[in-house]
Amino acid sequence: MAAKNLATCIFCKIIKGEIPSFKLIETELSFSFLDIGPLSKGHALVIPKHHAEKLHQLPDEYLADALPIAKKIAIAQGAENYNVLQNNGRLAHQEVDHVHFHIIPKPSAEEGLVIGWPAKPLGKEEMEAVYEEIKGKL
Amino acid sequence: MAAKNLATCIFCKIIKGEIPSFKLIETELSFSFLDIGPLSKGHALVIPKHHAEKLHQLPDEYLADALPIAKKIAIAQGAENYNVLQNNGRLAHQEVDHVHFHIIPKPSAEEGLVIGWPAKPLGKEEMEAVYEEIKGKL
Repeated sequence: MAAKNLATCIFCKIIKGEIPSFKLIETELSFSFLDIGPLSKGHALVIPKHHAEKLHQLPDEYLADALPIAKKIAIAQGAENYNVLQNNGRLAHQEVDHVHFHIIPKPSAEEGLVIGWPAKPLGKEEMEAVYEEIKGKL
Repeated sequence: MAAKNLATCIFCKIIKGEIPSFKLIETELSFSFLDIGPLSKGHALVIPKHHAEKLHQLPDEYLADALPIAKKIAIAQGAENYNVLQNNGRLAHQEVDHVHFHIIPKPSAEEGLVIGWPAKPLGKEEMEAVYEEIKGKL
């Protein structure tokens, strides 16, 4: 699957320059460019040069390289309010199967990322049970 | 502002152990724990030990440390679909003024992060104008 995606992945093609992009910052491990379907002015993407579909499949050095670039872009965007978002899987709103970090200015309620937050606080015992389960897998 | 927040910041108190938490992974630079108002089972936070309100104010080494921890947590959560989200400013849904990365499993449409995506594709000339503006500030 990953090998198949590698040949057809549009983000891999952007990294190689086979598809043009509004390139911002490039490092040895990462590439960044403007999103062509922006949620707000300046909406940008940072992507690792290593092809992986989801965040947990990436080598640590690629993960470590991404956010310092996001920081530089956020400073250039100059937005007081902004979101950094990385989606994994269709249900979680991922549309391109190559890890990408969105840096999305939030200039107004109508522009930028719209967030719904259906929080469900758990009781102490439920929290403890979830904690033991997750902790046991770390 | 930052100095004032440092003394009263609940995340700084969690890092110091002055407020209890469901602690997951701790490194020299980062701390992680379960969100007590979870959007889904296992919803966790990774926070830098350096107090900064927004991502662009953090030293790079703290930014570099965060995502490899998020990766370990995502693997322990075991969700096929999940979101990594970091909000900056009230309008962008930030509620605690200390940088935090949410790792939120998305097991169903009703649970986890709900995303609205009001994309507004721009024309070529508009994209080029935005590009020149952002690029000029990098």
